[in-house]
Amino acid sequence: MLSTMQDAPLSIAQLLVHGSTVHGDAEVVTWTDSGPRRRNYAEVGRRCAALAHALRGLGITGDQRVATFMWNNAEHLEAYLAIPSMGAVLHTLNIRLFPEQLIHVANHAEDQVIIVDPTLIPLLTPHLPALTTVRHIIVTGDSTAGFEAPEGVQVHAYETLIADQPTTFDWPEVDERSAAAMCYTSGTTGDPKGVAYSHRSIYLHSMQVCMTDGPALAQGDRTLAVVPQFHAMSWGLPYAAFMIGASLIMPDRFLQPAPLAELIAAERPTFAAAVPTIWQGLHLYLEEHPQDISFMKEVLIGGSAVPPALMHAFENEHGVRVLHAWGMTETSPLGSVARPPAGVEGDERWRYRYTQGRFSASVRARIVDDAGNVVPNDGTSIGELEVRGPWITGSYYGVDAPDKFDDGWLRTGDVGSITPDGYLTLTDRTKDIIKSGGEWISSVDLENAVMGHPDVLEAAVIGVPDEKWDERPLVAVVLREGSTTGVDELREFLSDKVAKWQLPENWTVISEVPKTSVGKFDKKRLRSQFQEGALDITRP
Amino acid sequence: MLSTMQDAPLSIAQLLVHGSTVHGDAEVVTWTDSGPRRRNYAEVGRRCAALAHALRGLGITGDQRVATFMWNNAEHLEAYLAIPSMGAVLHTLNIRLFPEQLIHVANHAEDQVIIVDPTLIPLLTPHLPALTTVRHIIVTGDSTAGFEAPEGVQVHAYETLIADQPTTFDWPEVDERSAAAMCYTSGTTGDPKGVAYSHRSIYLHSMQVCMTDGPALAQGDRTLAVVPQFHAMSWGLPYAAFMIGASLIMPDRFLQPAPLAELIAAERPTFAAAVPTIWQGLHLYLEEHPQDISFMKEVLIGGSAVPPALMHAFENEHGVRVLHAWGMTETSPLGSVARPPAGVEGDERWRYRYTQGRFSASVRARIVDDAGNVVPNDGTSIGELEVRGPWITGSYYGVDAPDKFDDGWLRTGDVGSITPDGYLTLTDRTKDIIKSGGEWISSVDLENAVMGHPDVLEAAVIGVPDEKWDERPLVAVVLREGSTTGVDELREFLSDKVAKWQLPENWTVISEVPKTSVGKFDKKRLRSQFQEGALDITRP
Repeated sequence: MLSTMQDAPLSIAQLLVHGSTVHGDAEVVTWTDSGPRRRNYAEVGRRCAALAHALRGLGITGDQRVATFMWNNAEHLEAYLAIPSMGAVLHTLNIRLFPEQLIHVANHAEDQVIIVDPTLIPLLTPHLPALTTVRHIIVTGDSTAGFEAPEGVQVHAYETLIADQPTTFDWPEVDERSAAAMCYTSGTTGDPKGVAYSHRSIYLHSMQVCMTDGPALAQGDRTLAVVPQFHAMSWGLPYAAFMIGASLIMPDRFLQPAPLAELIAAERPTFAAAVPTIWQGLHLYLEEHPQDISFMKEVLIGGSAVPPALMHAFENEHGVRVLHAWGMTETSPLGSVARPPAGVEGDERWRYRYTQGRFSASVRARIVDDAGNVVPNDGTSIGELEVRGPWITGSYYGVDAPDKFDDGWLRTGDVGSITPDGYLTLTDRTKDIIKSGGEWISSVDLENAVMGHPDVLEAAVIGVPDEKWDERPLVAVVLREGSTTGVDELREFLSDKVAKWQLPENWTVISEVPKTSVGKFDKKRLRSQFQEGALDITRP
Repeated sequence: MLSTMQDAPLSIAQLLVHGSTVHGDAEVVTWTDSGPRRRNYAEVGRRCAALAHALRGLGITGDQRVATFMWNNAEHLEAYLAIPSMGAVLHTLNIRLFPEQLIHVANHAEDQVIIVDPTLIPLLTPHLPALTTVRHIIVTGDSTAGFEAPEGVQVHAYETLIADQPTTFDWPEVDERSAAAMCYTSGTTGDPKGVAYSHRSIYLHSMQVCMTDGPALAQGDRTLAVVPQFHAMSWGLPYAAFMIGASLIMPDRFLQPAPLAELIAAERPTFAAAVPTIWQGLHLYLEEHPQDISFMKEVLIGGSAVPPALMHAFENEHGVRVLHAWGMTETSPLGSVARPPAGVEGDERWRYRYTQGRFSASVRARIVDDAGNVVPNDGTSIGELEVRGPWITGSYYGVDAPDKFDDGWLRTGDVGSITPDGYLTLTDRTKDIIKSGGEWISSVDLENAVMGHPDVLEAAVIGVPDEKWDERPLVAVVLREGSTTGVDELREFLSDKVAKWQLPENWTVISEVPKTSVGKFDKKRLRSQFQEGALDITRP
């Protein structure tokens, strides 16, 4: 029996219209080298209409891909809203991809237009001749100076292009399951693979961001989106902010601790989101340059496991609550969020906040063992996390990847367990776990234990071959400047924190842990360095 | 271009499984004449499975309608969850319908089964012979004593029926646009008309109930659902509570001020929802029998306009914030919610809280004038409110009602205006507005003004024929017991509150305003009483 409900699709245009009218006074603040520039959502709405008209004029009349190669800023927000609303598909290019990956994804997505920030032109132009489908480049700002386009490519200045366009647009009604935006994974193996979010998935995800069991973004919040718009849609914050009427504070290219601290002091965000390394950097900076940041009620941290020491530092030293969350490009990205159960107080809360958190009603999660069996949510049975839901990808764009899916569920590649009341604890990536003498050692647990030492800035653990045990852990540590702490002392420090048989015998002190394009530990490169003999191994 | 997202439907079963596992410790409390009885959501989940097996056994194998004739209680919650989850359609029968309406809706929906509370048996049995499709009656509790079924109808005791059934169920995957639940409007004109909610509409609506711009229901909340489950799905609270892990406090048949006050003292709800008359009654009761209710952070009031005096009383005398909302059966029912904009403080907040509030991103609203033109949201242009969205009905079940819809939008029958920042102010129902000498007088504004007098308990205003002005207002007032206030004094009281030409010259003092089956002022009956000369009119 059919319902009598209206067939009203969930769409980005709905968010755009709502945010730019009902919340027309909310603003997007973009940081520049001379302080903030501001634009309210009413104006963003008018500029989105103008941008859509301009793109129509460049031949974007259907579901062609319009790419961005941009920092987080007001124009990137406009691209986020206007491109899907007009029926085209936004493709956020990761500015940190290696050249061959960048070329691959732009060609694979068949990008027609790229919008680029002036400061990123030098990163893009060398590769333009290899981009076979790009016909137009739009440079944000009012000048195209310094841009030399290859033949067949036209270059436009963003402000000039939209200047004389109408400021209203008759947004088409779309099929909510059609693609709105694309993001390619920054996977460390093989070519990046594309995830195509739908209007429906983005809309539902935005609702979750504003729900009380999610980040609970609210009207009037000032949202500092440090997490890049070119990485997992800035965790959905631009869309959720338009849905709920929260202002956005965009750091543009000023992601270093000093300007970030200045931006925070000036704009007083109430909510912020970034990967752990950003918060780690800010914390260290604030130790040297104290300032009040307690107006940030909550910071959302995800992308990789958050060292407990960092959570405590934010809460105890800065009065800022850390909200740990788990997700990935394939999950839009909001998966689980570590809010303790209501009524749990004091130190008891930490037991929950260390976990990856709980899933909302919309995302089902299960743990599957090596033999492919679903194991119980008993808090101890370990296996690979699989997820299912309306904002979880079910395939990759234009490529077959059957090993990534299991009967309609996404295989996340993460290993962990779930408690009866739904709290997820991830112990490792399936490919990073160390299999030693028939037992599993979590590289992440070891890293967190080592990073608990006050002289350790970063620690990455990989498995290295061992004749007797198959694999044993190797710890690569970055020490605080001037520290004289030795490897013996670090091993001693671990001795009452991990089981004796897990105690690593291989150590190396390095100046920096190699990172992926989105700032995660790049263990693949660390493994290569080990294999090439580039690491100086100490055995205490 | 299609997205790569999973095709995961939004469904009631998802809510049921989530709530009964992740939030298995949350509880539903049902009030009885000997205090509360409690059941946690884990057990509710097991009993839902058993109920579904039992209904399969009674032949409910497809999308047949299973009706409830019940108060708000744990078993009604089980029916809410189990019936749609198994693929059947829940039909909540309004226990206050007039007999001919009850018979009409049960036959029109082709109800196969009715679940009934023992205390409601006397209201149901006289009409059973007229119900042509009902084959089974399930009486909650463990006895069918006192039930005499007509031939062809089998009677079962709820507890006996589910006692030996399996406590897990392989819930089928449903089309999210299929019907999950039905509710007939209690319209004062013509036969009640059926609205069939879909799995999708109920799921999305539940998300909105847990969003920060909605009621913001949260995990750990204790939700007192006074608004009946047989009326507009108890405003979606049972589903939202299962989605988010809020406990439910169900008053069953104890809706009078005294037991309600006792229940509130015993169960300490943090959130509550009811129509104004319930809160008005509670407020009067608490004046005589003071008790602390300030643990209720917020009470949601809707169903009809809330007198400002009542809002102030709750905030100032009881420390409870009133959240005014607008909706109707046709809108699931959550439409607009009167949260002031962030940053608005002190008395300035009242300006927003008196309104019907703002719509979320998911519901579009527009004002249409008599000529059918959409008027601007300028706060002054008046017309009929029309709404569109995924949880707004687009038709009625099995009947044509073209005059209720306008190009895919629902015509609400409410008259008002919307400000540029989205706040709705309703001035009247289209059929209640008083057209006097070419000008419109809002019956609701007059009622609120009269109810501002301390000696007035209730006031209802209707238009009555007038030779010179076409129509003039007639005020029917209910005075506080023992009050000696005269009509002259009331008119004088109004003189500085409404325009002089609006000052009513027709008054009548009555003992009670007639109410509809859901407790709203029944102006149709008041008009009949006037026409029959049953009202004693005074002209000051």
